[in-house]
Amino acid sequence: MELTRRRPTESRHVLRWEAGRSVRRAKDELAAEEPLEIQVDTQPVVVTMRTPGHDDELAAGFLLTEGLVRSRKEILKIVPYVRNESGNVLDVFLAPGVQVDFAQLKRHVFASSSCGLCGKATIESVHRHFKKLKSKLSVPVKTLLGLPEQLRGGQAAFDLTGGLHAAAIFNARGRLIVLREDVGRHNAVDKVLGFGLLNGLLPFDRHILMVSGRASFEIMQKALAARVPIVAAVSAPSSLAVQFAVESGQTLAGFVRGDRFNVYSRPERIGMG
Amino acid sequence: MELTRRRPTESRHVLRWEAGRSVRRAKDELAAEEPLEIQVDTQPVVVTMRTPGHDDELAAGFLLTEGLVRSRKEILKIVPYVRNESGNVLDVFLAPGVQVDFAQLKRHVFASSSCGLCGKATIESVHRHFKKLKSKLSVPVKTLLGLPEQLRGGQAAFDLTGGLHAAAIFNARGRLIVLREDVGRHNAVDKVLGFGLLNGLLPFDRHILMVSGRASFEIMQKALAARVPIVAAVSAPSSLAVQFAVESGQTLAGFVRGDRFNVYSRPERIGMG
Repeated sequence: MELTRRRPTESRHVLRWEAGRSVRRAKDELAAEEPLEIQVDTQPVVVTMRTPGHDDELAAGFLLTEGLVRSRKEILKIVPYVRNESGNVLDVFLAPGVQVDFAQLKRHVFASSSCGLCGKATIESVHRHFKKLKSKLSVPVKTLLGLPEQLRGGQAAFDLTGGLHAAAIFNARGRLIVLREDVGRHNAVDKVLGFGLLNGLLPFDRHILMVSGRASFEIMQKALAARVPIVAAVSAPSSLAVQFAVESGQTLAGFVRGDRFNVYSRPERIGMG
Repeated sequence: MELTRRRPTESRHVLRWEAGRSVRRAKDELAAEEPLEIQVDTQPVVVTMRTPGHDDELAAGFLLTEGLVRSRKEILKIVPYVRNESGNVLDVFLAPGVQVDFAQLKRHVFASSSCGLCGKATIESVHRHFKKLKSKLSVPVKTLLGLPEQLRGGQAAFDLTGGLHAAAIFNARGRLIVLREDVGRHNAVDKVLGFGLLNGLLPFDRHILMVSGRASFEIMQKALAARVPIVAAVSAPSSLAVQFAVESGQTLAGFVRGDRFNVYSRPERIGMG
């Protein structure tokens, strides 16, 4: 299932202006962004703008977090579409007998309840597909505080470009399992969860997902799909991320940076001693 | 076309942990995130997760930047869907005789060329719908350098939450025309461009679009739809944003902060003297 590993950055010449200096021509590294079309059994299911590399993980993670597949054995193989020379179309072939419900794609946000369309209805419809969590996992504060430095240390492409999101999975002792970077933060999360799926590491139910930016509803939903009990974000969560975490039984920590953090839900999983 | 203005933030109690201090319960403001469904002539066209408020602008901007409408007069009215109590469904009614091409939605990313699916094909298909720019506008360096402070000064909800993106339109003298915040950066851009459409200010062809984060392909595409010749980003552009800007005749400046910036395309529009 090995795919071509393309470079996540591209060089370009820019004009750099700085106060007190003359304008100069300089070389700049840019975060690579290209479209990727994912096909399942030859049917196109999505086009996403992503940073090339680890595309098989992105496809696997996307199918997992959208509820289209649930386990590694449902995927027969993931291969580049032979008639696309640029490597931007992926063919996912499912195992014999596996049927996916394409109508499931994004159905959750169209779900109706008493409110018609609202955060509560959206959460309820996700829970019809992904059960709430009941993990007893607890990690000490010092484990949580050690994550940002490891995340930052792994952001090789960000160091070059300043323009990529990162997501990482850590185990309960704070050891880095996998880190991926992408121009899209949802893609970065799909890649680390897809890595888990393809390598038989799921569920990530004794693990922590850390993201370099903000935590949205969609990040929390993806974490739930992979059974991750603790999500840590360098920046702020949204209102719906918090509401989702509360109702899903997920621990959500935000502003995890330096010597501080906030806990928005299920604080019992962080041993604040 | 006035809609209910809902609060862009929500209060919540959190546990705050800081080194050397005991854990304490604190009040925290969160960026509000809720689904919004946009219907055109009663047909659902998209559900987006957005920060409530200025939803009419979001809908108008979305329709403009997706190429579904081109002018204010094509929209008869935008009203909340009466059967949705939570205010998360909007009905856009088009003027009599106006027909929109729903198949146009996102067609551009499925476009094919010699590469099948790649950045080049994606750009080419956008240009079949939105013509390249030939603006002679030029702004002095000091105008560009004055934008970040104005942008930051207008980010009221970010100040409370730390969790919102912002987009703003400035005129050629650096005067702020409109600023909007949203959990989604594309939504923030759609809102400022939708404001322009609804208020008869388009094309924004002697204007600057500034975004609080990174510049992606999609941001540049939206700017082109509203004919904005200069885009400034606080953070980094992606490779495809730069490629798109070069081929669309847009000026793209990145890392516009403090006393510096990089110019990635069409530097002649910034008078670096």
